[in-house]
Amino acid sequence: MSKQTIYYTLTDEAPALATASLLPIFSAFAKEADIKLELTDISLASRILSAFSDLLPADKQVEDGLKFLGDLTANPDANIVKLPNISASLPQLYAAIKELNAQGYNLPNYPENPHTDEEKEVQARYSKVLGSAVNPVLRQGNSDRRAPAAVKGFARKHPHSMGKWSKTSTSHADYMRSGDFFESEQSVTMTEAQTVRLEFVGEDGTVEVKKSLPLIEGEVLDSMNINCKALRDFFEESLQDAKDNNIMWSLHVKATMMKVSHPIVFGHAVTVFFKDVFEKYGELFKELGVNPNNGLGSVYDKIQTLPEAQQEEIKQAIDACYTTRPELAMVDSDRGITNLHVPSDVIVDASMPAMIRNSGKMWGRDGKAHDAKAVMPESTYARIYQEAINFCKTNGAFDPVTMGTVPNVGLMAQKAEEYGSHDKTFEMKANGVMRVVDANGNVLMQHTVEKGDIWRACQTKDAPIRDWVKLGVTRARQSDTPAVFWLDEERAHDNELRKKVETYLKEHDTSGLDIRIMSYNEAIRFSMERLIRGKDTISVTGNVLRDYLTDLFPIMELGTSAKMLSIVPMLKGGGMYETGAGGSAPKHVQQLMEENYLRWDSLGEFLAVAVSFEELGIKQNNEKAKVLANCLDKATGKLLDTNKSPARKVGDIDNRGSHFYLAMYWAQELAAQTDNAELAAKFAPLAKELAEKEATIVAELAAVQGKPAGLTGYYHIDLAEVAKIMRPSNTFNTALATL
Amino acid sequence: MSKQTIYYTLTDEAPALATASLLPIFSAFAKEADIKLELTDISLASRILSAFSDLLPADKQVEDGLKFLGDLTANPDANIVKLPNISASLPQLYAAIKELNAQGYNLPNYPENPHTDEEKEVQARYSKVLGSAVNPVLRQGNSDRRAPAAVKGFARKHPHSMGKWSKTSTSHADYMRSGDFFESEQSVTMTEAQTVRLEFVGEDGTVEVKKSLPLIEGEVLDSMNINCKALRDFFEESLQDAKDNNIMWSLHVKATMMKVSHPIVFGHAVTVFFKDVFEKYGELFKELGVNPNNGLGSVYDKIQTLPEAQQEEIKQAIDACYTTRPELAMVDSDRGITNLHVPSDVIVDASMPAMIRNSGKMWGRDGKAHDAKAVMPESTYARIYQEAINFCKTNGAFDPVTMGTVPNVGLMAQKAEEYGSHDKTFEMKANGVMRVVDANGNVLMQHTVEKGDIWRACQTKDAPIRDWVKLGVTRARQSDTPAVFWLDEERAHDNELRKKVETYLKEHDTSGLDIRIMSYNEAIRFSMERLIRGKDTISVTGNVLRDYLTDLFPIMELGTSAKMLSIVPMLKGGGMYETGAGGSAPKHVQQLMEENYLRWDSLGEFLAVAVSFEELGIKQNNEKAKVLANCLDKATGKLLDTNKSPARKVGDIDNRGSHFYLAMYWAQELAAQTDNAELAAKFAPLAKELAEKEATIVAELAAVQGKPAGLTGYYHIDLAEVAKIMRPSNTFNTALATL
Repeated sequence: MSKQTIYYTLTDEAPALATASLLPIFSAFAKEADIKLELTDISLASRILSAFSDLLPADKQVEDGLKFLGDLTANPDANIVKLPNISASLPQLYAAIKELNAQGYNLPNYPENPHTDEEKEVQARYSKVLGSAVNPVLRQGNSDRRAPAAVKGFARKHPHSMGKWSKTSTSHADYMRSGDFFESEQSVTMTEAQTVRLEFVGEDGTVEVKKSLPLIEGEVLDSMNINCKALRDFFEESLQDAKDNNIMWSLHVKATMMKVSHPIVFGHAVTVFFKDVFEKYGELFKELGVNPNNGLGSVYDKIQTLPEAQQEEIKQAIDACYTTRPELAMVDSDRGITNLHVPSDVIVDASMPAMIRNSGKMWGRDGKAHDAKAVMPESTYARIYQEAINFCKTNGAFDPVTMGTVPNVGLMAQKAEEYGSHDKTFEMKANGVMRVVDANGNVLMQHTVEKGDIWRACQTKDAPIRDWVKLGVTRARQSDTPAVFWLDEERAHDNELRKKVETYLKEHDTSGLDIRIMSYNEAIRFSMERLIRGKDTISVTGNVLRDYLTDLFPIMELGTSAKMLSIVPMLKGGGMYETGAGGSAPKHVQQLMEENYLRWDSLGEFLAVAVSFEELGIKQNNEKAKVLANCLDKATGKLLDTNKSPARKVGDIDNRGSHFYLAMYWAQELAAQTDNAELAAKFAPLAKELAEKEATIVAELAAVQGKPAGLTGYYHIDLAEVAKIMRPSNTFNTALATL
Repeated sequence: MSKQTIYYTLTDEAPALATASLLPIFSAFAKEADIKLELTDISLASRILSAFSDLLPADKQVEDGLKFLGDLTANPDANIVKLPNISASLPQLYAAIKELNAQGYNLPNYPENPHTDEEKEVQARYSKVLGSAVNPVLRQGNSDRRAPAAVKGFARKHPHSMGKWSKTSTSHADYMRSGDFFESEQSVTMTEAQTVRLEFVGEDGTVEVKKSLPLIEGEVLDSMNINCKALRDFFEESLQDAKDNNIMWSLHVKATMMKVSHPIVFGHAVTVFFKDVFEKYGELFKELGVNPNNGLGSVYDKIQTLPEAQQEEIKQAIDACYTTRPELAMVDSDRGITNLHVPSDVIVDASMPAMIRNSGKMWGRDGKAHDAKAVMPESTYARIYQEAINFCKTNGAFDPVTMGTVPNVGLMAQKAEEYGSHDKTFEMKANGVMRVVDANGNVLMQHTVEKGDIWRACQTKDAPIRDWVKLGVTRARQSDTPAVFWLDEERAHDNELRKKVETYLKEHDTSGLDIRIMSYNEAIRFSMERLIRGKDTISVTGNVLRDYLTDLFPIMELGTSAKMLSIVPMLKGGGMYETGAGGSAPKHVQQLMEENYLRWDSLGEFLAVAVSFEELGIKQNNEKAKVLANCLDKATGKLLDTNKSPARKVGDIDNRGSHFYLAMYWAQELAAQTDNAELAAKFAPLAKELAEKEATIVAELAAVQGKPAGLTGYYHIDLAEVAKIMRPSNTFNTALATL
């Protein structure tokens, strides 16, 4: 790699479409500072194809972009701009495979119940593509996320809508009080490097080694179990409670990130809710290959092979459940898609903030918002949402105009705390004991388990913890803001971490800083009490809370988490600049397909690329890069101020229009700045031309809106085809080409 | 006074009636230890009579029992057993005057709007009788309240009923967010003794000295204002919100303790709720002397002089309000008595715990329990109830079997923090400025006020604070329990106290103790989190929170606050032992009158007298007193264990029956003990006789139940007459007389 290269990721859905318009602008500008923007494809389709590259003909093989970038993270000069990608659920994987097959890629089907070694191999390859497959590879550093001053200022000046909270709201979070991961968690810190065994001991005493796990010195290993019966009883009770109290029932899990444990949890919700159906048709469903972990959608999908009459009977049995159960929250009431249809539709970290922002309501069958019981079975993190709900009932909705901000420093490096998302999570096939045994045969941790229980272990290495503490102190110092380490004294894992935090804090000058350690409920309450008083508080958290909080607070503060500055200072010295945390927006693609209007807001990309330029400028001593960065930030501020962000519907400015304005403002800032005369001279003509032709360009961009865009691929897009759609203004393209 | 004298108070209503049966037992037993129990009358009637003693003929004059005891508190040997008394509201005062006049005491009427000096003098005398008139005189020490081990053990074995909490409960606390005392509080600590002036400065610059206030060195003086318009707007908004959300509206103030400020607050609630009525008939009501601060009852009372038709018209106008307003919580739905009828019917410290214990519900017009908006306008302390409600919604009702305990050490001595209950509270008659000016003319504090605002100042002397800190540390040490000083960092007063607390804590050995300072919400949350985990936490609080918390937690833990051990270690060395904090139970009197059944539980008296004996024994080196105390505690424990506490209805054991069993068990314990042979010998025959005649005595006691008791006085009882009612067992009386 050249040290002057920025790796820009091609991902999925809306951000990928936007890239076709935006990257040419970035590239054209960057070229003037001798910087190259290299596009690296890590889309779901590309990851599937590269996983089966050996089975494809040479002309259909693709490079493994993810592996390339993963290797790059070890390079101290790595500079990666990472856009949101799909964390694929099984249904999404199926759809992508189907599309690729239709495009002539001869891929094997995903074997749900692999029997042969070959099938097992195929499943193993696909499983590496499923769920959060990208982040663990790329995030070779901890996480530093905050609202940039310009964005925060904009939100204060132009506050987004916030649903009012009624003091009489009946909405609440519901979670298990016993039998869950939280209650059963155990944790040990390795005093020396060794390989431990994760073993299952059957009731007959037979020992099955589920996994050998090499650990390094100082590594924290947790284990925990969720009791299947307790989980199902909890679902049944919460359903009954919702029914009795006439409140909507809504499930919120994280089937993407916790890709092994949470689909199972989701599946139990499906089979408990539709208990009557699964009891009656259980055997048939098994034959058909229905997998409740894939949602009710799997039932509708698999019964299509049955005779019409039988299909109808099953559908009626499903509908009958709705009369005995409480109302179920909807993902899409128009199309009758409930919360239980697809496991990836409702993702707790995004759905709970949306609910809290929407007066604590979810959408009902009638298309209207209703109070809801938000069911998050596992209590470890669910409690913070109840705390937030109680807070809003007591104090009303947060006010974007007056509220402070809660930036996050998150532990993430080296796959820290990847709960339930990896090969250390097991669904128990029999009663017995799961235990962790060290190299000398000592049992480090053990749980009595029952058939159906979900047992999981989780690793957190020492170096990332040490770096995380350092990053927390650095952020507290740089922004002169109190920092709270969220470590729950009732969690075994957190108590192990607390010891390390207390040790590593001593390595830093913390004089004059306000650094505290608090349990989750205390910490969120403390932060919220400060928040409504306009005060800022840095949350220094583990990986899951990083994920949750960098949606929760930004959505309250900014209306979206996509506007956050999201930096991964790599342990090896490089940097990754993530854009947005708001997912890849499938609904935006739908709108583009139907009416050639893309409402994706590339603000996150603007912010990330500015930091990317700045870092490159500092590290490579590239003055022009710094000027580009500085002017890009100013242009972004102007874009916000002049309200040139994408609107939501045909006739208004869309993603492409906002890119044009960014380019114009950026060029104007470059022309006007005096730090680098060469750049000023270079950009003056472009600034002039774009300003003169503003009306023409805007008209050309607007002209294409309103009719289907003619997009042929969804998961595997043809970039040349997309470029035609996304760059419809010849005037603009021509002007840009003059650089 | 003899050093071997215990002063036992004659108070009002149920406890006074119980005294007629119980005191003879205590006296008979005490005599054997050479202890005399002296009955001192501090009933409302007695206090009224002594206030006008000079106007009464010699044979109708009564001693000023309250003054006598007040003087006694300065004596290091003082030993006072204090039973609950009436804190009279105006309606209660009227009723008492009426009864006394009927009994031939020629008392002046209470002049509501005094004009002549004579009327003003009469009003001033009565005002000393109103509200919390007893406690400020007698409580010459701080407060030490806790659940005795036997009582806590009993509650764990025989848990009282606790209403379940629904996660979907809509109940909540509603309070002002601005314009209240909390927001406006200012506080200064006097660096030297001096007299300050509380002045009103009119808009024309005229200065009116409302009060000259001599202060001593180290005394903390607060001032605060509640804006009348903000208060009335708040009531209107909360009514509208309740109406819109179809939730019952319920007002909770403390018109007794905060006898100047809170009746005014109550009056505003009445005139806002019945706005239409007061707008239409305002002039007429003024002529009639209607005082909304006395509740809607005052309207019904005063209109009785009007022609039938006009009365009917007004009553219909009142009824019409109920259709435009939200449902109003009822005190007595059978008799149509709402929360707004009488200011002393609903007293926040008792009513809120009852609501929380009852699933967060209040009683509606239909006689059923409903979710309610609990309106406590002033936010200083109201917030803790919202915290408690949120906690119950989240965690369910408290469980008496498993919960810990929250004892209280309360700042109370020398009228500390008597907010709104004294002559430093003023209702503003015009717009202007209220200010506190020191001897040198410096303005120490000031508030811009408007007509109708309530401005109040409040004193807290240094010595009580120092003693309170000491008592907090002592209790923490003696019970090896964490102690939390509840001091809110957003309150000016508490910040002054915090400085003193931090200073005085250094005077004590706190090594190994867990002593913290927390804001109210933090403190109650911390205590509740520990509570549900079975852990104890001492609350070290100011005066109002003392009052509130020693109802709140005992009612959850024990089902009643009457079972608390309540000790006032006097600053001068004496001790007062208070029995119960549950009021004087007017409904119990009603039941006795109608069916000669008294369900008052004298447990508080048993506990208090035991401590009183013990303290006397220690101070006067009276070994027999200690043995009496020890055996009384054991007898109380046995009484609880054998379920000989009063039941609730005719046919079961009542107050008198429980006294018999206490006497029998006490005698048995004394006969069985070996610490003092003389006492054992003395009580052996009585123990034997009572055991032999148990059936006869119980039958004699039961025989009188079921018919009206023939009680002639209510406020001013004839003790000889009451003794006949309360001591109907000749067999028991004769046996007791053998001592």
